[in-house]
Amino acid sequence: MTDLLPSWNNGIARQAILDFVARVITENGPDFVPPADRIATFDNDGTLWCEYPMYVQAFFVFDRIKTLAAQNPHWYTQEPFASVLKGDLKAALAGEEHALMELVMATHAGMTTDEFTAIVKDWLATAKHPITQKLFTEMVYQPMLELLDYLRSHDFKTFIVSGGGVEFMRPWVERVYGIPPEQVIGSSIKTRFERREGKPVIVRLPELLFFDDKEGKPAAIQHYIGRRPIAAFGNSDGDLQMLQWTTADPGPSLGLIVRHTDGDREFAYDKSAMGSLDVALTEAPQQGWVVVDMKQDWRQIFAFES
Amino acid sequence: MTDLLPSWNNGIARQAILDFVARVITENGPDFVPPADRIATFDNDGTLWCEYPMYVQAFFVFDRIKTLAAQNPHWYTQEPFASVLKGDLKAALAGEEHALMELVMATHAGMTTDEFTAIVKDWLATAKHPITQKLFTEMVYQPMLELLDYLRSHDFKTFIVSGGGVEFMRPWVERVYGIPPEQVIGSSIKTRFERREGKPVIVRLPELLFFDDKEGKPAAIQHYIGRRPIAAFGNSDGDLQMLQWTTADPGPSLGLIVRHTDGDREFAYDKSAMGSLDVALTEAPQQGWVVVDMKQDWRQIFAFES
Repeated sequence: MTDLLPSWNNGIARQAILDFVARVITENGPDFVPPADRIATFDNDGTLWCEYPMYVQAFFVFDRIKTLAAQNPHWYTQEPFASVLKGDLKAALAGEEHALMELVMATHAGMTTDEFTAIVKDWLATAKHPITQKLFTEMVYQPMLELLDYLRSHDFKTFIVSGGGVEFMRPWVERVYGIPPEQVIGSSIKTRFERREGKPVIVRLPELLFFDDKEGKPAAIQHYIGRRPIAAFGNSDGDLQMLQWTTADPGPSLGLIVRHTDGDREFAYDKSAMGSLDVALTEAPQQGWVVVDMKQDWRQIFAFES
Repeated sequence: MTDLLPSWNNGIARQAILDFVARVITENGPDFVPPADRIATFDNDGTLWCEYPMYVQAFFVFDRIKTLAAQNPHWYTQEPFASVLKGDLKAALAGEEHALMELVMATHAGMTTDEFTAIVKDWLATAKHPITQKLFTEMVYQPMLELLDYLRSHDFKTFIVSGGGVEFMRPWVERVYGIPPEQVIGSSIKTRFERREGKPVIVRLPELLFFDDKEGKPAAIQHYIGRRPIAAFGNSDGDLQMLQWTTADPGPSLGLIVRHTDGDREFAYDKSAMGSLDVALTEAPQQGWVVVDMKQDWRQIFAFES
């Protein structure tokens, strides 16, 4: 038992995970769940990797705007691009959703899917977190990597269900989390199959297809997976409905919230520029959801600490 | 070797499948494909089960209209419902896509996803093919079941990529084809997460989300799976772009078309009310796609023959 989840301190959270898994894998037990139904869904930003001070994908957007500015000189005088190029992110986002969407489409659409994958891989190979100076792909939570492995070792199928862009995640999550591309659900834009120079390609279009957050998460789970998870993991109110949907079933289920409480080793916040943990935290005790206190429950947060 | 694909006669088609699989599983061979990349996509109607004289889902729509007419008496005087209730399907579909969509939405939307699943299961438990009088789930092609098993035994991950409704397929394809719900891609309508009597539910809305046919198939493959298949199986021009996308990659790939040539044991047609095999058949020799002649290549078509 001491080998299981080694980065988790002994405590209520770790024990709740071990107990839940023991119950659902016990054949002939009252809570046995057949392997095929052992679906576990994980939010990504703030649950599997760091989302502070800003989503990694937002850093990607801003970096790409700077890179592409040479080919788009009018951006220097056109908002929200001009503010990004001046480094004034607050002003860039003053137009809120509309401005953000313009920045996303300028950096995420117009190329083929293969081209976009290459852009993401190239960027992630060198892009660093502004505070820790670590690669973003090093800013993943070691206890959650162990949890993913532990669940899979008991025949759970692990999925990401994130508000982030699905094609932004797929190029690296298999290597980093062991989650294959077909088990990644995220927000998406429309695409079109066409021929370019005689070769079939899939082109990314500047139009939102699906926003995978809040009420969108259970709807997406049903749409992409087609069965209800028995375990769901999140860290904010964006995950509230996914947790509700997962744990409303009368069968055994586990809902878990990662709470960012460690200002020394990571960042301490319930509310950030990226979202907040409020309603889900209030509902947690009634719903029986486990709340992980990162400072108390995690012996180690990042692999690079050791 | 004789145990492999026993319902396939020895011939070019069977040999092409065996050769392809042998090449991609040979470690250190020039065409080796790692297990994780062994993605195979199958059309459903006309490729895995019978689509003649009409898609099974169309029979479902017409049966449901009749069942629901008692609660919707105005349908008796309102097209396209009135024609369906009179048994005049030709007149019912005279309005073409618009009329068909009205019939689909009247029978596929308004309920929760759990309720719709139960409706489909109940219907399939007794609904029979009008010509053979067999259950629709018995109208599956035995050689294709063997092919699915054979590919999976070599670590292929098998997906359905069908124009049919995804939630119409999921309730039965795991039992019939061994394909789990999360590996089924199809056409879909919008849904909404909400609370009914305090319980979270997902409600099906009468609005198309995605039509998974023709150019939509490769786009859907990229959207849902996130990697290019190395093998694709279809039977009509609705599968043309999926075949093109799959076999355009410079790596090893297999494209295969099931051609309906057996008027005795099944039905002989290239063109039906449901679609046609025309451009894909013309392209097949140039592209190196295998064309299965059901009459010649299949020793047995349905399990109930024996």
